[in-house]
Amino acid sequence: MSASLPIAVAGLGTVGAGLLRLLREQADVLSRRSGRRIELVAVSARNRHVDRGVDLSGVAWFDDPVAMARTATAEVVVELIGGADGPARAVVEAAIDARRHVVTANKAMLAVHGTALARAAEAAGTALHFEAAVAGGIPIVKALREGLAGNRISRLYGILNGTCNYILTTMRESGRPFSDILAEAQKMGYAEADPRMDIDGIDTAQKLALLASLAFGAEVDAGGVHTEGIRAITPLDIAYADELGYRIKLLGSVRQTERGLEQRVHPCMIAADAAIAHVDGVFNAVVASGDFVDDTMYEGRGAGAGPTASAVIADIIDIARGRRTPTFGIPSDQLVRLPRAPMEHHIGACYVRLMVRDRPGVLADVAAAFRDEAVSIEALLQRARSPHEAVPVVLTTHECEEGAMQRALARIGALGTVVEPPMMIRIEPL
Amino acid sequence: MSASLPIAVAGLGTVGAGLLRLLREQADVLSRRSGRRIELVAVSARNRHVDRGVDLSGVAWFDDPVAMARTATAEVVVELIGGADGPARAVVEAAIDARRHVVTANKAMLAVHGTALARAAEAAGTALHFEAAVAGGIPIVKALREGLAGNRISRLYGILNGTCNYILTTMRESGRPFSDILAEAQKMGYAEADPRMDIDGIDTAQKLALLASLAFGAEVDAGGVHTEGIRAITPLDIAYADELGYRIKLLGSVRQTERGLEQRVHPCMIAADAAIAHVDGVFNAVVASGDFVDDTMYEGRGAGAGPTASAVIADIIDIARGRRTPTFGIPSDQLVRLPRAPMEHHIGACYVRLMVRDRPGVLADVAAAFRDEAVSIEALLQRARSPHEAVPVVLTTHECEEGAMQRALARIGALGTVVEPPMMIRIEPL
Repeated sequence: MSASLPIAVAGLGTVGAGLLRLLREQADVLSRRSGRRIELVAVSARNRHVDRGVDLSGVAWFDDPVAMARTATAEVVVELIGGADGPARAVVEAAIDARRHVVTANKAMLAVHGTALARAAEAAGTALHFEAAVAGGIPIVKALREGLAGNRISRLYGILNGTCNYILTTMRESGRPFSDILAEAQKMGYAEADPRMDIDGIDTAQKLALLASLAFGAEVDAGGVHTEGIRAITPLDIAYADELGYRIKLLGSVRQTERGLEQRVHPCMIAADAAIAHVDGVFNAVVASGDFVDDTMYEGRGAGAGPTASAVIADIIDIARGRRTPTFGIPSDQLVRLPRAPMEHHIGACYVRLMVRDRPGVLADVAAAFRDEAVSIEALLQRARSPHEAVPVVLTTHECEEGAMQRALARIGALGTVVEPPMMIRIEPL
Repeated sequence: MSASLPIAVAGLGTVGAGLLRLLREQADVLSRRSGRRIELVAVSARNRHVDRGVDLSGVAWFDDPVAMARTATAEVVVELIGGADGPARAVVEAAIDARRHVVTANKAMLAVHGTALARAAEAAGTALHFEAAVAGGIPIVKALREGLAGNRISRLYGILNGTCNYILTTMRESGRPFSDILAEAQKMGYAEADPRMDIDGIDTAQKLALLASLAFGAEVDAGGVHTEGIRAITPLDIAYADELGYRIKLLGSVRQTERGLEQRVHPCMIAADAAIAHVDGVFNAVVASGDFVDDTMYEGRGAGAGPTASAVIADIIDIARGRRTPTFGIPSDQLVRLPRAPMEHHIGACYVRLMVRDRPGVLADVAAAFRDEAVSIEALLQRARSPHEAVPVVLTTHECEEGAMQRALARIGALGTVVEPPMMIRIEPL
């Protein structure tokens, strides 16, 4: 066996502790699969005096992770601090500068600085890998970068945030409202105290932008992702989805259109018999369609210490074996800057729920607004009758332009008989 | 860009022609992703005068694929001839002998000679890769060999034969018998004229043995796979499965038990709400469970020119990039020879269907046979009544030893009131 591969780990939170446990418990497996002994030589975290359940004697401790990245005897620096800038970015830049390989789980950083960091790593001749940044333990980065490398990817979509999927699954199973389930998820540790990154779709958008870069050979453009979250979804919408043969999922999806790259994150109505409709709870899944391979799907746990550590170590083993690949699959100077396909030109069918006063003429006004924007109604349901309170009117449309739909909804929302902002969920053909 | 990578292709059937089409249509993608131009320098097939839709001028033609493997100027020889021995094996051995890398889609050959060929390739310092040999376009070999490399795999199972899955899916959808659907599948090209490799489970067993080797770091032992096919499945069994909340799938599954490696291929009753129960038609899927990553699932097309070519080219790109990995994930001299867990000690619940003469005492005799073997009945259904013809009795058992089940079934099959050999399908907890 060759010499050992010395590594340094910055950040010893849940994932960092999981990685240390994996390094200890699987030492024999890792040596066989990587051909080298993977040796933890240095760690850095905020608090030295936390019991992480792993013996760190013989491992150099650094209070300053940047100093560790610069000076430790490591060939690989693992960045598990998190955050787009600050110490995480400083650690990665210092490691590249010192010509050490970098493995990171940091989607927020790569979503903003991914292209620049890939270029820096390439210039320095070091690896920069990020399997753990997207979809936890699912080896989707490797699948896109290597397994499907002979394909032009036509489309990719996925459930990339376990918190949102858990909330939507539990709302459907229990019939209870979003806020209750969110509070419960926070208690159980499935949602952060500040849940905005998850429930507003930002985390999904960051991951999607990384997958899009891999799939389309493009610079990372997280700012170009049209992003909506799941706060507005009600039990009523979930019940109507069931009735109409759909499930509601927060999907990130990307495809190349004539106008450019269309990156979208928003709740979708998807056919209840689609494979990804059955991906429930905290699980993630990604569907990638290539011109030769057709549809492929990858499913697994999207977060957690074990699955994330599994992804981090896969990157480390690649480095140990000398398996080198550009960060985004192709040399970073060949990554193209694709134009953003404007969302207003997106074409798709929609589900719309209106809360209306049950008076004659309401539906005529609604129908007129859609007609004037050339939006064609496919079906309309008005079951409840009540002279005194608002009742739901639900309709589905044929395919229409997003801009037309938004103009129609603005006009409908302004009607005196429509008492809440209209709820619109796009119907996604899979 | 570095120098081009010259390749030679032996066998220009469906997959070979698909590969040639891919090489032509994706030349730009391949160059970006592999860092080298992949250049077809030689081909060999039985008939030079077939129009394969691809211009082969400028490509050396060999009538003898072994001569091509020995003498062509290729760095990589792609073996797409098929068959465990004969020219396919001779080509691979000649290529290794001439220190050329080998990419093959040949599961039959690797199932028999995989360990020996891996050792030969390693000794010669060449790569021997086989992504296309298992589950078509799904990059499952790479996922196991690299993506999940930090895990001990506890269990792996999958739908690995599209023909069987198509037949079982269509039987369920149409209610029609096996023989009808097989004949139809043969007409549509979904089943071979000689369907035995597929429907008797042999093809699944070969693929399972390769995945088992990757997952458990073991020598390939296709002979150790307990193998049953799907011929005996009737529409009645499929209807009962539906009623009991199951689907019938031909699964290959492997796990390590205290007694050794348990490799099994047989029809299974699986819960209708399991993710893999929704994998229908010609699609394949594999579930791999690791100690850190937990369950991961991979789904896609298991055969066909496009998906298989996609897998072949992924291996070629790995070679072009210099990404080197031992054939079965670890050096072949470290592959262990695991004992075979005897099937008679397999523990599991079962579905049993008997066709009986509807006379008093039949059930008492059946129940006594199970009791004497300590097999505990979970549920029993006898709906139809008919004094003149055989009626089905269906029962499910609690977990029991396979040996006890077989002894009970032998005794039951010998009862004068039981008019057909008992049908037993194992209930697989997923």
